[in-house]
Amino acid sequence: MTDHMTPDEFRAHGKALIDWIADYYEQIEQYPVLSAAAPGSIRAALPDAPPAHGEPFESMMADVEQIILPGITHWQSPNFFAYFPANASFPSILGELLSAGLGVQGMIWQTSPAATELETLVLDWLVAMLGLPPQFLSTGSGGGVIQDTASSAVLAAMLAARDRMTNDELRMTNDEDALTPSHRPLPPAPASVAGNDPRLRAYCSTQTHSSVAKAAGVAGVGRANLRAVAVDDNYAMRPDELRRHIEADRAAGLLPFFVCATIGTTSSNALDPLRAIGAICREFGLWLHVDAAMAGTAALCPEFRHLQDGLELADSYAFNPHKWMFTNFDCDCFWVADRAALIRTLSILPDYLKNAATASGAVIDYRDWHVQLGRRFRALKLWFVIRHYGVEGLRALVREHVRLAQAFAGWVADDPRFELAAPAPLNLVCFRLRDGGDEANRALLERLNTSGKLYLTHTVLDGRYTLRLCVGQTHTEERHVRAAWAMLRQP
Amino acid sequence: MTDHMTPDEFRAHGKALIDWIADYYEQIEQYPVLSAAAPGSIRAALPDAPPAHGEPFESMMADVEQIILPGITHWQSPNFFAYFPANASFPSILGELLSAGLGVQGMIWQTSPAATELETLVLDWLVAMLGLPPQFLSTGSGGGVIQDTASSAVLAAMLAARDRMTNDELRMTNDEDALTPSHRPLPPAPASVAGNDPRLRAYCSTQTHSSVAKAAGVAGVGRANLRAVAVDDNYAMRPDELRRHIEADRAAGLLPFFVCATIGTTSSNALDPLRAIGAICREFGLWLHVDAAMAGTAALCPEFRHLQDGLELADSYAFNPHKWMFTNFDCDCFWVADRAALIRTLSILPDYLKNAATASGAVIDYRDWHVQLGRRFRALKLWFVIRHYGVEGLRALVREHVRLAQAFAGWVADDPRFELAAPAPLNLVCFRLRDGGDEANRALLERLNTSGKLYLTHTVLDGRYTLRLCVGQTHTEERHVRAAWAMLRQP
Repeated sequence: MTDHMTPDEFRAHGKALIDWIADYYEQIEQYPVLSAAAPGSIRAALPDAPPAHGEPFESMMADVEQIILPGITHWQSPNFFAYFPANASFPSILGELLSAGLGVQGMIWQTSPAATELETLVLDWLVAMLGLPPQFLSTGSGGGVIQDTASSAVLAAMLAARDRMTNDELRMTNDEDALTPSHRPLPPAPASVAGNDPRLRAYCSTQTHSSVAKAAGVAGVGRANLRAVAVDDNYAMRPDELRRHIEADRAAGLLPFFVCATIGTTSSNALDPLRAIGAICREFGLWLHVDAAMAGTAALCPEFRHLQDGLELADSYAFNPHKWMFTNFDCDCFWVADRAALIRTLSILPDYLKNAATASGAVIDYRDWHVQLGRRFRALKLWFVIRHYGVEGLRALVREHVRLAQAFAGWVADDPRFELAAPAPLNLVCFRLRDGGDEANRALLERLNTSGKLYLTHTVLDGRYTLRLCVGQTHTEERHVRAAWAMLRQP
Repeated sequence: MTDHMTPDEFRAHGKALIDWIADYYEQIEQYPVLSAAAPGSIRAALPDAPPAHGEPFESMMADVEQIILPGITHWQSPNFFAYFPANASFPSILGELLSAGLGVQGMIWQTSPAATELETLVLDWLVAMLGLPPQFLSTGSGGGVIQDTASSAVLAAMLAARDRMTNDELRMTNDEDALTPSHRPLPPAPASVAGNDPRLRAYCSTQTHSSVAKAAGVAGVGRANLRAVAVDDNYAMRPDELRRHIEADRAAGLLPFFVCATIGTTSSNALDPLRAIGAICREFGLWLHVDAAMAGTAALCPEFRHLQDGLELADSYAFNPHKWMFTNFDCDCFWVADRAALIRTLSILPDYLKNAATASGAVIDYRDWHVQLGRRFRALKLWFVIRHYGVEGLRALVREHVRLAQAFAGWVADDPRFELAAPAPLNLVCFRLRDGGDEANRALLERLNTSGKLYLTHTVLDGRYTLRLCVGQTHTEERHVRAAWAMLRQP
């Protein structure tokens, strides 16, 4: 027989690994933030064939240090200002470790009741913590679930919206009365979901995350049938343009069914006007999904909740604690106002999953809330984070990040060589050199990132190459942002 | 400012948690395998509101012990014989911990080159380890990727197949010559993927996992447009029936495009005849996906590779190391023969993700291989498992599980009160009491599971309630299987 690692060996290796991780965080500022590895270099340093016989754990860790680490872009460095962050914290790492240790697979309530019930509870907690509207509470007709990413969340929302539109015969007519209210009871679940109606049309803005176009392709709606609505000078969706598209499509006999609005776009943190968009969605019977993947965390602080004004008009909502709420990737929180619509779209019950608890209707089976069947116990890490920091603790961290980003935006605005490229409502600052055009800005970004001292990424706004600095890494302090600004100002 | 957990606090809490997990595995046989929690009981024991201020880690762990553990169904117990297993191992837990500690998000190569390159390498290793056909190697036109689950894998396969059929005008004709060979170069990627063609038809067997029907709904193909092909006495798909459906659908002007065959169905571990099915797929230009979610691990052993005879005719293949290869959930390995077809379906490149490495074409960006954009560094745990056990070590474990299941099947066959309900080619045994019908078998299962001493689940085969015993938990030994049989035989 083969040797499993014994519990005592696990104790020894596990404690050494805990120390290794603690050391890593203590030394993380010494590594170049952006990996300088050349394509193929990591693979070339590893054996072409797997080992026939087992190797000691120390060999694996030696390879991690010598071969893997040079190929790591250090997302947990306080000098990581790129993309949106994926900020982790020690409590979340411990939650992930405990989840892996318990090794439960929570596809249905019965396969670990605690995994389901803790998840439902924590997502109800978050409704209160974030000031979300009550339609998302599991104690009413809605409820929340942890998805892996915001991409999966918007796909789930679009699927539920698609099937609400195409399976509901009343909605297939042009009868205005039949199109409201949007949350009336649905007919019984069909034995099978029919193919799509090619008349379906969805809407987002020109600034919406690419995951919405990807979802339209996946869902069979078709990327070409997703309309990109024009934005205003602040890169926010124009409600008048949304209305114009919907009315034109309806006049052409098409079926507008879905809008994705964003609180904090990826390019520039633009804020779509939810209340006006929501009113249009209600008027025409469209499903409104709101994506607040990063910026949603700001709603922990009452002073930022004006950014989600109108959210009570939404059918679904998602934000990612794995971006800005100190919960290691992956952890997207997704809520629906009408869980029956979601479940109707995604539920399948083969014999081998039937059980008394499910049949009773008294429990949630989360496999019916997303594409996947299996799922791990991700609520643990989110629960650990919330309990470790407490609501006030999380608020203080968010406020500090926003303060630092606002300070940086002020420095940019005050320096005649730079300009702000978009409003900076929270923790993302878009800016550029005034002179030298795209080439100068591209060269500046290249100089910064190859220095290894920090990592920024770019976007294109209004056709112009634009630098982005996002303050959201767990351990970013004022000194890191000041150092970034000093680097940027170097000739 | 708020208190983060310091590195030294992390060292202390992390080491305590490592000990807690080791203790858990040492004591795991003392817990009832199937949680006896009543619906709502876990939630009721937890506070309705989140804490305003941070709490000590010890408080969280006390709640884990007192409130969470009673709501855990112990998937890692050696007495877990239910469903398919989700077997973990200490090396995989350490790999997951390291992944959480590094906290990288490997959506594209640049965001951590090592995460991408190690994943590609390990999936190439597995092609050799499992004796998979060479079309799945990344060094040719194919390649592998880690998905979360087999549900996501079959969805990705169906999407690629859907778009290969609907975007390729030659495939829309009835010209036989145009339908072969199945892997000729595709036309350039369209700017947008159009809505689906309602003529699309997909095929699986009556025994295929429900994830295929779910995928058909998600992909907009429509569950009603997935044909369930009849099976033979061994619950394997009948190629003559598959051909009959395809020919009838083609004659009706429909577009057959996709078949899912299974190596080891969930109900009974039935083995679809891949070679015959593959020949039909080639003849008619259909994409063949092969799902070997659990049984695929058996191919580590050359003596079991006859089960995948004909796999060289497949366009895609998936198996789950998180089921039977000691890698904690989630970890599904998914290969395609033509990665261009997959990427064409799932690629979107917004400005904020553009970078030199991607533009060069020299690297893989795995965000184009699945629905999600973000992804964690799951290759680490798979690499740790392979290196800890070595190929021979993994083989020995698989052989032992098969030996134990075969022994159990022999005991069932030799006992006049019981009967085998289906062939048991590997590690799953389907059986039932001969007398008393469904009620007697249901009562037997209920007695076993409420005892807490073991956990089995059921299925329905040929209309009859059937018990399933799957030997695949990491620490299951002969004594556990013998004890299960003794429990079953008790009056």
